Amino acid sequence: MEIKVVRKVLDVNERMAQQNREYFTKQGIYVLNIMSSPGSGKTTLLEKTLARISSEIKSAVIVGDICTTNDADRLAKTGVSVVQVNTDEFGGDCHLAAHVIEKAAGQLDLKGIDLLFVENVGNLVCPAEFDIGENAKVVVISVTEGEDKPLKYPLMFRVCDAAVLNKIDLLPYLDYERNAVLENIKKVHPGMPVFEISATKGIGFEPWIKWLRNQVNRKKAPR
Amino acid sequence: MEIKVVRKVLDVNERMAQQNREYFTKQGIYVLNIMSSPGSGKTTLLEKTLARISSEIKSAVIVGDICTTNDADRLAKTGVSVVQVNTDEFGGDCHLAAHVIEKAAGQLDLKGIDLLFVENVGNLVCPAEFDIGENAKVVVISVTEGEDKPLKYPLMFRVCDAAVLNKIDLLPYLDYERNAVLENIKKVHPGMPVFEISATKGIGFEPWIKWLRNQVNRKKAPR
Repeated sequence: MEIKVVRKVLDVNERMAQQNREYFTKQGIYVLNIMSSPGSGKTTLLEKTLARISSEIKSAVIVGDICTTNDADRLAKTGVSVVQVNTDEFGGDCHLAAHVIEKAAGQLDLKGIDLLFVENVGNLVCPAEFDIGENAKVVVISVTEGEDKPLKYPLMFRVCDAAVLNKIDLLPYLDYERNAVLENIKKVHPGMPVFEISATKGIGFEPWIKWLRNQVNRKKAPR
Repeated sequence: MEIKVVRKVLDVNERMAQQNREYFTKQGIYVLNIMSSPGSGKTTLLEKTLARISSEIKSAVIVGDICTTNDADRLAKTGVSVVQVNTDEFGGDCHLAAHVIEKAAGQLDLKGIDLLFVENVGNLVCPAEFDIGENAKVVVISVTEGEDKPLKYPLMFRVCDAAVLNKIDLLPYLDYERNAVLENIKKVHPGMPVFEISATKGIGFEPWIKWLRNQVNRKKAPR
């Protein structure tokens, strides 16, 4: 019975996600859902990404946390429109659901926005199960988390369209095999692009920005 | 309606956790539930802890992951009895529930065991909500995750009896304020002991082992 109920919740979410998708598509907004473990560096990645693209791609951010507005405060400093969702208003949810995105989007000025980033709740499990109406999903893992995460959390890596391998500036101080994590990602999701970045040090951003730009432009191009 | 159902699931879990607790108490086994984000170093902490205590405290481990037996394979090398739970058998659960612990415990030889470690699924959100019949809960956070985690995931820090601040060997390479994280833990859970450790480098184990020893002995002492 429990499973049936979960199925029902997911079905409702699916419908709402589809509504979100139609709404964002109509507005010409590309939506990117960014997910990771707590502390993998999503917010720093976003700060540095926004600083690099803001002159060419008009962006906004929805950021989810159970508590605090820390991340929204940091992101607001980049000058983009930001709304913080605190899931403790929704029962302390461990993920952002589609109805939460609909509500949050209503609080943003989306006029002229090309790209809406959604920084999900830090959790490598549950957010992977919830479609929010995005165009693509990105998983961020940091090298301090070990090489085995793709194998241990396969759903997350399977549903994502790209991965960011963050904190590569710490590699000299870790017993970490870069090839092993790349192999593990390949096992779970062959062909998925992986961007090796140090968000804090500003290393490796070019291919990531290029990918983002292509994603947004491809969506805007007439079909 | 959704909330009611969740409540029911939690009630069932609560009852099963109480049964586990009675069972373990009768066997004289102290149960410690270890939780963290993915990649915070729970397994390495356990490996090094087991190596240090095995001569005086007879231990066993239940380790939870969605997939893979990586952690059990690593822990089995320490010579203790280990059972791996893969939650993909239970719908890919993002936490260990009490009924899973009951099943796993049945696969362990618990004769003469003083201390049962439960390494939970890597997730700083959901496992905090599920009593498994443990005597105490410990949260592990690594310094690479940033100082704000106690404020962003307050339930986890509120329900735990101790915290391990891991990977302190990386502090020289990070822009990390140790005092800030200690302050944040204090705000959420005043008085909770915090053990500053580098599991990989074997630093800071003495106070942690002392705490463990006290926990196990206090339980065994006649009341």
